[in-house]
Amino acid sequence: MTSDQLFEQIRLKKSFLCIGLDPDYEKLPARFRDLENPLFEFNRQIIDHTHDLVIACKPNTAFYECHGTKGWDQLERTVEYIRARYPEIFIIADAKRCDIGNSAARYAGAFFESMDCDALTVSPYMGADSVEPYLRHPGRWIVLLALTSNPGADDFQMTGNENQERLFETVLKKSKHWGNPGNIMYVVGATRANMLVKVREIVPDHFLLIPGIGYQGGDLNEVAGYGMNSRCGLIVNASRSILYADSTENFAQVARIRAEALQHKMEKILKKVI
Amino acid sequence: MTSDQLFEQIRLKKSFLCIGLDPDYEKLPARFRDLENPLFEFNRQIIDHTHDLVIACKPNTAFYECHGTKGWDQLERTVEYIRARYPEIFIIADAKRCDIGNSAARYAGAFFESMDCDALTVSPYMGADSVEPYLRHPGRWIVLLALTSNPGADDFQMTGNENQERLFETVLKKSKHWGNPGNIMYVVGATRANMLVKVREIVPDHFLLIPGIGYQGGDLNEVAGYGMNSRCGLIVNASRSILYADSTENFAQVARIRAEALQHKMEKILKKVI
Repeated sequence: MTSDQLFEQIRLKKSFLCIGLDPDYEKLPARFRDLENPLFEFNRQIIDHTHDLVIACKPNTAFYECHGTKGWDQLERTVEYIRARYPEIFIIADAKRCDIGNSAARYAGAFFESMDCDALTVSPYMGADSVEPYLRHPGRWIVLLALTSNPGADDFQMTGNENQERLFETVLKKSKHWGNPGNIMYVVGATRANMLVKVREIVPDHFLLIPGIGYQGGDLNEVAGYGMNSRCGLIVNASRSILYADSTENFAQVARIRAEALQHKMEKILKKVI
Repeated sequence: MTSDQLFEQIRLKKSFLCIGLDPDYEKLPARFRDLENPLFEFNRQIIDHTHDLVIACKPNTAFYECHGTKGWDQLERTVEYIRARYPEIFIIADAKRCDIGNSAARYAGAFFESMDCDALTVSPYMGADSVEPYLRHPGRWIVLLALTSNPGADDFQMTGNENQERLFETVLKKSKHWGNPGNIMYVVGATRANMLVKVREIVPDHFLLIPGIGYQGGDLNEVAGYGMNSRCGLIVNASRSILYADSTENFAQVARIRAEALQHKMEKILKKVI
């Protein structure tokens, strides 16, 4: 998917919402636990009830890998289902991979060929040659971790270098030359919304994937105020606050209500740019 | 496995060799390609022919994930086979995971419970709370990326901070307080052997996992000279230089010869400490 097509989806759906497909077996409504493919069936219900409100979905691989081969199979089924039924939805594999070229090329094969995802989250720690193999796939994206939403972001990402530049800024400055705003996005946590000013100075045109609203406490209006550009430039993710808002058989309807509330807020915010 | 048990294996086998189980489908001897589980069958041959020469093995998840569910299944079979047949071998899942606590806990479940690996490689970019969940598993280890063997290590890992300290040094200094030499190891590339002096100043007692000898050109004697401690403290990995030394039906025998040559060098080196 191109940057233009993504912006077109944002205009059509009046939304920049991404739904995190992180199916936590323990939190699934009871009847799912007896099913052959509980994670997939749960995801299917969620996406069937929210597809018109979201422009992207983001399965986190950890929630599948912990179930072994059966889990990986359900990740594949989820991606296949969304790709076949809702081809306009931008699929981000939240895998945060991090390896040298030889291995990175294989991760690209895993997520862009074996599975038909649009984007893959990647950790920048190993530098340029650990990122470059992904960028050889036209129409696919990487979403590079810049400044994450968790407390541990202070440990390294916020430490300053000899030029008084924090590590996440160095990551942005160097990595933007590895690709372009048509194949690189960045993760910036909503819990650090004020840092979006700094981020936008360095990468004004790139899409930013923003986790951390909802459960982690980030504020949508603040994020948009600091981070939106003339083509929106934001994909805001919510997972737990949508998926587990209700633990009964009504979970999918309640998930829709939660997603709708976010979409309505986004529609208002988007009036500035569309 | 404890640090004492690992050192005991090093003493018994007179080796600190780790074999990288990175089965590259394109490079497998022709007959494997018709098998139901080519990656697993190849691994099985390799490990059956080298198990007495190595103290550890390190499957890199990228080489399995690129084959989808069938690949993940073969990773599981590989770990199961080694665990059942060669229980003394330390199994390192080279997955380089990197995610917040909630997800990290699930990766720990994937590699320490669903699969029975001894250790998991982890990228430090997201800080303390992305590492802590793994350390709740007694007897298991993380191997944290410090200074990697690829050219891209210069992009961030070698950049200096405001105290003239390079990022990999900051990673070592902070992270050593998150656990102890009984549950954290560090990756330091053999291609940067002279940096091992600096590494040993900060973490004298930790085991170091050293990739980059063989194909990537690092030198074993140099690595040992700079990095060995009184309990060896080194696990040196070789992958391609052993796995693909021969592409005929003799591949496993030739792999053994290559592994043996490394083990002989290690035996000489180890005379200083055992």
